[in-house]
Amino acid sequence: MKNFYLETLKQEIFSKKSFLCVGLDVDISKIPPFLLKEEDPIFAFNKAIIDATHPYTIAYKPNIAFYEAYGERGWQSLRKTIDYINEQHPRIFTIADAKRGDIGNTATMYAKAFFEDLQFDSVTVAPYMGQDSVEPFLAFKDKATILLALTSNKGAFDFQTLSTEGVPLYQQVLTRSQQWHNAQNLMYVVGATKTEYLAEIRRIVPDAFLLVPGVGAQGGDLAQVCKYGLNESVGLIINASRAVIYASQGEDFASKAGEAAHALQQEMAAILHTQFPTL
Amino acid sequence: MKNFYLETLKQEIFSKKSFLCVGLDVDISKIPPFLLKEEDPIFAFNKAIIDATHPYTIAYKPNIAFYEAYGERGWQSLRKTIDYINEQHPRIFTIADAKRGDIGNTATMYAKAFFEDLQFDSVTVAPYMGQDSVEPFLAFKDKATILLALTSNKGAFDFQTLSTEGVPLYQQVLTRSQQWHNAQNLMYVVGATKTEYLAEIRRIVPDAFLLVPGVGAQGGDLAQVCKYGLNESVGLIINASRAVIYASQGEDFASKAGEAAHALQQEMAAILHTQFPTL
Repeated sequence: MKNFYLETLKQEIFSKKSFLCVGLDVDISKIPPFLLKEEDPIFAFNKAIIDATHPYTIAYKPNIAFYEAYGERGWQSLRKTIDYINEQHPRIFTIADAKRGDIGNTATMYAKAFFEDLQFDSVTVAPYMGQDSVEPFLAFKDKATILLALTSNKGAFDFQTLSTEGVPLYQQVLTRSQQWHNAQNLMYVVGATKTEYLAEIRRIVPDAFLLVPGVGAQGGDLAQVCKYGLNESVGLIINASRAVIYASQGEDFASKAGEAAHALQQEMAAILHTQFPTL
Repeated sequence: MKNFYLETLKQEIFSKKSFLCVGLDVDISKIPPFLLKEEDPIFAFNKAIIDATHPYTIAYKPNIAFYEAYGERGWQSLRKTIDYINEQHPRIFTIADAKRGDIGNTATMYAKAFFEDLQFDSVTVAPYMGQDSVEPFLAFKDKATILLALTSNKGAFDFQTLSTEGVPLYQQVLTRSQQWHNAQNLMYVVGATKTEYLAEIRRIVPDAFLLVPGVGAQGGDLAQVCKYGLNESVGLIINASRAVIYASQGEDFASKAGEAAHALQQEMAAILHTQFPTL
């Protein structure tokens, strides 16, 4: 059992001078065709990506839908992937991007699937069903629950930004969830396409880690996100998926992914250097 | 491929005089111990439950968390269960209770998992991420997308009933989603513990089917739900899980489940008789 994820995560960030998460959203139609002859093409792809990117990466985030779409086989590729990360790079933080949300005993079953059966460090969870749908995840010691607050898609403006009692719904999610049992295990998903909201979010949850998708392909800007989102422990996990894993579709896909991850890490190191001069 | 689910569903309701859905929330610690010697205890349990309850049932709803918690093996039990229903009882409506919610391509992958790979008729989906997280499900022809509106748990009052622009959030979900592309494929989850809200919900979505959990174990009252929720096509799918599938933990578990389902069907038939006297 991996423990004390939070201290390890903070140490990894400062030691690698990176807060990069690589999203493993692996679509079999987008991986290099020569991998299709492998027994498990998705795992073969992930293994090569992990081997090439791990020096620059503090987290990996498999997007569960991309595995579930292949049923038992996909689940097996997912298991091999998380096992490989945990064996080879046990200090790298792992995120099951599952966006689950259900109540009581059902939530506990989902938590067991990702925290116990697959041994992820964290899982993304949706807030719509409220406190009793999230606390079963929070009850797991030394595991993080990453709650959707403000997402990076167009539909985020349908409900998340609606004014409720004078504040946007996503702020209600932040404020109320901080009162829940074991709230110290909470992190939040905050889209990078809305940096103007980040200062406000940091005011409400100064200490929480924010998982930020949408830098790169979805148009977020790293410097802007850092300007408003950094805290004393860095407090940011910035995800890049397609920009890294599909940097090339040729035989050189892994080395190109490594280069893309390295370039992002260098950008992050430069920002950290200005913000934490003693580094 | 199963098609025209909606007409079939309506016909089944009137022909069986039932709008009962049996929830297959199968916890291996709660099934009769003698089944544990089976190669696949969860499927063996489901098969016996289906054999005993199908005359009284118009829908089955496996709760995906309970399968996912067992990884590849659980996924296999789920596949055998849905295949068995589709082969033996192709007119019975099937619901993947997955409460998924993610954007664009990821939503499409979840939709493929449940609609194409597993051949479910419908899947439950969460609204927090908005239009572009739901329309990829709605794009599937002859499949239903069952959107969470007002759930039956305590946490439903955390966000779903917050006032937004003068109306509760769950009403925003109902109203806005009716404008989305292929909205004719929408159904809604509406908790039975709040029958006072049902009249208002029926005003907003007069024609949509409502999936109502929480009658029985969660304290909802069937007559009250019907008073406010019935429409011209009945328009209700009432779920019972534990009250049916765990009616007995002995050798007689299946026959007791059948009796419990039959008793619920009889209650429903009596209500239908008063509302649709020509039946």
